[in-house]
Amino acid sequence: MRPWKVLTASLLLTAPPWVSVFREKVELPSGRVLDDFYRVVMPDFVAVVAVTPGRELVLVRGYKHGLGRVSVSPPGGLVELGESPLRAAQRELLEETGYAAPDWRCLGQFVVDGNRHCGRAHFFLARNASQVAEGKTDDAEEAQVELMSVPRVVRAVRRGEVGLLGSLSAISLALVLGLD
Amino acid sequence: MRPWKVLTASLLLTAPPWVSVFREKVELPSGRVLDDFYRVVMPDFVAVVAVTPGRELVLVRGYKHGLGRVSVSPPGGLVELGESPLRAAQRELLEETGYAAPDWRCLGQFVVDGNRHCGRAHFFLARNASQVAEGKTDDAEEAQVELMSVPRVVRAVRRGEVGLLGSLSAISLALVLGLD
Repeated sequence: MRPWKVLTASLLLTAPPWVSVFREKVELPSGRVLDDFYRVVMPDFVAVVAVTPGRELVLVRGYKHGLGRVSVSPPGGLVELGESPLRAAQRELLEETGYAAPDWRCLGQFVVDGNRHCGRAHFFLARNASQVAEGKTDDAEEAQVELMSVPRVVRAVRRGEVGLLGSLSAISLALVLGLD
Repeated sequence: MRPWKVLTASLLLTAPPWVSVFREKVELPSGRVLDDFYRVVMPDFVAVVAVTPGRELVLVRGYKHGLGRVSVSPPGGLVELGESPLRAAQRELLEETGYAAPDWRCLGQFVVDGNRHCGRAHFFLARNASQVAEGKTDDAEEAQVELMSVPRVVRAVRRGEVGLLGSLSAISLALVLGLD
């Protein structure tokens, strides 16, 4: 299972920092050439599963325009230029919820689309989280902070309250690998 | 938390069925207007967590060009035009692995990107799966079928063998909601 070779890549669209699209000409290990394999370049993002000493998860509930409705999500957002994923995760947790934590662990990183890329998700577990400030949101990201026990979070997943793939992944991964 | 209004949408790029990009002008509930909110339209896809009577998961290991390396994934792929997600899931399980199952359950559906959309993932649990044919792959999707116990799957996740967000999500969600 050898990697494919990219023979050429043409930029079709660029709208930084949100999205760029390339058309690649790729050569498969078999020698066959595909003329139009699209690569969608999008920014890396982070999501943080923050857990309080009382074993509650610190989540936010807000409207998501991509989804077209309200969703429950872990705090998170785009990694800014020159910022490490961990720093972005710590910044987003504090900005969105007013929480901070002394104990951080990376749960993994995952490419969004197996064919077209679409950016990379970095997930973190933040233990012993506590509130140190007020969360700040602007009119483009209205949200309420909610603390949920693990059984309540699983119920929210079952009921469809978690509507976004990255949010679901971060929460499920943390539950599978363990919060302790 | 009211929905945003889309005032106009301009098509910037279309490469069906893979990707189209629109620039939307949107009005927030506050009345503020954003001139350039990008919507990336991509096809819906499915992933199937198939479990054998011996409680092993039916997975595939193959090269993924978006990731640039080999990854362990549940079988899955794009929903074809006019096909239901369940039908797509049954087709992909059979095509990729040669397995079929009598007992299907939808685990949920999730929008890939909270701002730009990027398609929707539909996840299924298929219980009592057994092999009824040979899996067929072509030179654009070379893959090996692997059966893994639950502890082995969790180890694969920890080790980074599962590199794609959709794959991770389907596996983790099935483990959180339960295989029974």
